[in-house]
Amino acid sequence: MKFTINRNQFIRQISNVQRAISTKSTIPILTGMKLVLTTEGLTVTGSNVDLSIQTFIAQSDSDNELTIDSPGAIVLPARFFIEIIKKLPETQFTFEILNNNQVLITSGISKFTINGLDASDYPHLPEVETSDQLKITAEILKQLVSETVFAASTQETRPILTGLHLKIKADQLLAVATDSHRLAQRIVEITNQNQNEFDLVVPAKSLMELVRCFTENETEVTISISENQILFEFGQTLFYSRLLEGNYPGTDRLIPQESTTQLEFEAKNLLESVERASLLSHASRNNVVRLEIDTANNKVTLTGNSPEVGTVAETMQPQAIKGDNLDISFNPDYLKDALNAFGETPISLEFTSALHPFTLKPTTDAESFIQLITPIRTF
Amino acid sequence: MKFTINRNQFIRQISNVQRAISTKSTIPILTGMKLVLTTEGLTVTGSNVDLSIQTFIAQSDSDNELTIDSPGAIVLPARFFIEIIKKLPETQFTFEILNNNQVLITSGISKFTINGLDASDYPHLPEVETSDQLKITAEILKQLVSETVFAASTQETRPILTGLHLKIKADQLLAVATDSHRLAQRIVEITNQNQNEFDLVVPAKSLMELVRCFTENETEVTISISENQILFEFGQTLFYSRLLEGNYPGTDRLIPQESTTQLEFEAKNLLESVERASLLSHASRNNVVRLEIDTANNKVTLTGNSPEVGTVAETMQPQAIKGDNLDISFNPDYLKDALNAFGETPISLEFTSALHPFTLKPTTDAESFIQLITPIRTF
Repeated sequence: MKFTINRNQFIRQISNVQRAISTKSTIPILTGMKLVLTTEGLTVTGSNVDLSIQTFIAQSDSDNELTIDSPGAIVLPARFFIEIIKKLPETQFTFEILNNNQVLITSGISKFTINGLDASDYPHLPEVETSDQLKITAEILKQLVSETVFAASTQETRPILTGLHLKIKADQLLAVATDSHRLAQRIVEITNQNQNEFDLVVPAKSLMELVRCFTENETEVTISISENQILFEFGQTLFYSRLLEGNYPGTDRLIPQESTTQLEFEAKNLLESVERASLLSHASRNNVVRLEIDTANNKVTLTGNSPEVGTVAETMQPQAIKGDNLDISFNPDYLKDALNAFGETPISLEFTSALHPFTLKPTTDAESFIQLITPIRTF
Repeated sequence: MKFTINRNQFIRQISNVQRAISTKSTIPILTGMKLVLTTEGLTVTGSNVDLSIQTFIAQSDSDNELTIDSPGAIVLPARFFIEIIKKLPETQFTFEILNNNQVLITSGISKFTINGLDASDYPHLPEVETSDQLKITAEILKQLVSETVFAASTQETRPILTGLHLKIKADQLLAVATDSHRLAQRIVEITNQNQNEFDLVVPAKSLMELVRCFTENETEVTISISENQILFEFGQTLFYSRLLEGNYPGTDRLIPQESTTQLEFEAKNLLESVERASLLSHASRNNVVRLEIDTANNKVTLTGNSPEVGTVAETMQPQAIKGDNLDISFNPDYLKDALNAFGETPISLEFTSALHPFTLKPTTDAESFIQLITPIRTF
């Protein structure tokens, strides 16, 4: 195995593969990066127990300046290998397997000899049937993930809640995440070639890594689903994630259909007030802020306090206020996360009582996006 | 005590004071920031055991938009106070002491009530006689510190070595730091009003904080010295540091006067090679690289190796090479620190043997700046 390649192109193209590789692993070979060279180009693979990422550097793409001397395969310690390539002095480097899985890397005045591992010992990637595919734009998938995954649980007490629940029916994809204190749900359009139905739970962590892999060049993502794996294809990259086993709890019944108090805010203004109020709630043992809604007097106040540090009161200016008076307390961090997902847009908040979850929706297209927060009982 | 002030100006001007304040302190009031308001303006102070920083926000500077209603003094929890001011909604805020050391901060729709402490309980700043002053430009002081402090010890086993040794004589300041493995020495010109001689040791940490306080506006720094304190004045800021007690070891005799092998490099090129070589030395238990100098054949090689990961060899291209052949081993991190202090400039390396310290100097102005590194015996 011997090739010469443009150093910056190589670094750019393997950057996604790196995301799958941990520096520590119970399976030592998985701390490595697998390189397989054929006459067409170089395939680079990284993997951990949950996800695997593979990319292909084509000889036919002249930007890669890839000159292939002889094919072959090797696994190299990923962290050192990447650090070395990043610090090489010239624009190209040459990579050559010597005896005993030793690799010689040369670039200008620098010569590195690195101990590799036999590529045949590297685990095989999962097999996912690709005949039955869904298509979604990278932009919509990225948005969907950023609008929902933060609501997934980070605790392993109920593993199924660490995933994003995806329900696919006709050309619609419904995504929902909940940690049982709050919930985020988004519905988007997809292309479903065979109109098949799917119901699956993808680890939230995998999806966060997936969308970090997208560059500005990515336009369309092709999704294939097998019993326990999901495969995302985009550009020259294959991204595999395992699926979570078990049944996701029913979440439809959690979303209230009616409300007795309604407010409208510009999301950004509400976010700034919650951020200020949480400065003091964070300093107290129970991280709670209180929203007092006085519809008769058009008055809404958000308060936070810490017995040690002091108190804060925000006199809110809603764009609309309707219904019954209400005092309700909640964790401000849940509201911050939800508001961050909305960005700069007018939203409506709907309440039924101080003990029932309240919802946030965009004032337009309220059907496709909903955030739900469970209040905290303070009396 | 009541005043209104421009929020961004306030944040900018107290940013230095913050550097002196720890969030944890055995003296609880030192986690606070002291504010004293007179008819002339606002004095803000922060302190820890080692250093104190005070700044003055003048009413006469119209940029401050400082309106003084009534004078007074208070100490507020620094971290919360600054976080709150940073997040306030309007360009100005009003600050007012209520009863029981409570402070009301208002800005637009936000009202914060913060529990303060009695300013009379705050420790007094050290008294430093300012009749006998030295002057140095901020730029030269900043350079002097960055060229030397990294060589100071970070270990408390010999506390005196955690400082920078300053020797002042006529209009010359000599600064030297050593952790007993390497040494950095710089000589600069200063203005010494009364031509007094000083010999003192300033904690390296204090000096690092000091130069971080300098903005681009700072031109001249005035230095006053008392028995156990040093005061730096610049702009509207007073910066006090304690001095280290004890005698600094004699370092003159450590610097070799002769050499048997000489090399010249562009500092940046040598740095890049050492960085690559250290990638592998860092992976091995003893962090050592080896420099092989073959003057007869004009050949210089830098090697590093890790039994686990592999080896690296850099074929160096010195701009000049003279004297005896030599193989010498050393910690590459010391050489990296030294080379970083030189920046982009031609330097000369001078060696006497594999067991004696070697030196680095700029090829021009070699008298004013010297770095010394002790080799590691590998046989």
